[in-house]
Amino acid sequence: MKESLPPFPAPQDPDPFDGLLNLAPAATGGPRLRADAARNRTRLLEVAARLAAEGGAANLTMEAVATAAEVGKGTVFRRFGDRLGLMLALLDHQERELQAAFLSGPPPLGPDAPPVERLRAFGAAVIRHEYAHRDLYLAARADASRRHAHPATQLRLGHLCMLLRRAGAQGDIELLAQALLGYLDINLVDHLVERRGMSLDRLELGWGDLVTRLVVTA
Amino acid sequence: MKESLPPFPAPQDPDPFDGLLNLAPAATGGPRLRADAARNRTRLLEVAARLAAEGGAANLTMEAVATAAEVGKGTVFRRFGDRLGLMLALLDHQERELQAAFLSGPPPLGPDAPPVERLRAFGAAVIRHEYAHRDLYLAARADASRRHAHPATQLRLGHLCMLLRRAGAQGDIELLAQALLGYLDINLVDHLVERRGMSLDRLELGWGDLVTRLVVTA
Repeated sequence: MKESLPPFPAPQDPDPFDGLLNLAPAATGGPRLRADAARNRTRLLEVAARLAAEGGAANLTMEAVATAAEVGKGTVFRRFGDRLGLMLALLDHQERELQAAFLSGPPPLGPDAPPVERLRAFGAAVIRHEYAHRDLYLAARADASRRHAHPATQLRLGHLCMLLRRAGAQGDIELLAQALLGYLDINLVDHLVERRGMSLDRLELGWGDLVTRLVVTA
Repeated sequence: MKESLPPFPAPQDPDPFDGLLNLAPAATGGPRLRADAARNRTRLLEVAARLAAEGGAANLTMEAVATAAEVGKGTVFRRFGDRLGLMLALLDHQERELQAAFLSGPPPLGPDAPPVERLRAFGAAVIRHEYAHRDLYLAARADASRRHAHPATQLRLGHLCMLLRRAGAQGDIELLAQALLGYLDINLVDHLVERRGMSLDRLELGWGDLVTRLVVTA
């Protein structure tokens, strides 16, 4: 297959994704938070993330966050509006952690590893990250029609395209990246683990095998 | 990778899917329709399918079906309950046509072709079929959490597993089949065509390439 197809995104050096996407309207759209308020917000999110990890995001309440953070309930409401606002902020917080890891973190996920190793590490990291926070990701991905246009999806797609190119993959790079991305769908992962009884290790092995098949030149 | 993983579904000869799944409760759950009533229902569905193909399923009305079929509006309501009932029956009708084609139709889609050719034909057929009826399929697949457990998805998955095995693919067959299936997601196809401006020909070429990579033994 020829490489005359429009590349997505345009391949560039250095890494075109060396920077984080801003996903949360709450973090960017409002008036600029004073530094201590921003620190306060981050601290509340870290508390919320810990509670969600322990008891599941579905069981997270504004009150529990306030109690664990030792602040008044009104502070949590002022910061996030309502429970949905807290959930969106928490999802954004988790997604940024993952993005920081694959864009600028240590190898094998980050820039200081060969592209094929980064590809392998990427799938394993996404599978484990989304499964660990599956309440949040399943809720965020419930509407199938919006998934592919989502900024977080676009960033991952661009990252996969870049790594596939650097790894020397031949063919229609964007479609190969989409095939890889489809394998990481949290709805699929959840189905395979919860309904088909597969282990995350098995899914990770399958990812590594898929990367090998898509990268290796015949 | 070892083949000690539980196969899905159990490999059998003859083709374990030589038969259609009954998907529509309306067609199986109710009292058995008399033969002429069943013919009448099929005729209404064929009229509805033609109207949906011409003007889009989103614009289909019970009244338009009645007029085009030259029956009273009450007959259409009696047969399908309401507009949602008509849509579900129409989706089931379209899905059965596709199933009949890949389970027992002529080659290269049906049984009288080598497995790799059937794999290639399968993806092309699904992409074109779902895109042609995308109003219906997008509506039916809007809830991402239900997609993987859907009987129609399970049938396709089993079909892909069977063809991959017969084609001599090595590795974790069920996960390879899931990777293939993910590429055929109507939400992805719709995104790539409508938002990214790709042609169905390009998606079909990408499918053929993916099949080659997953089947060919290193």
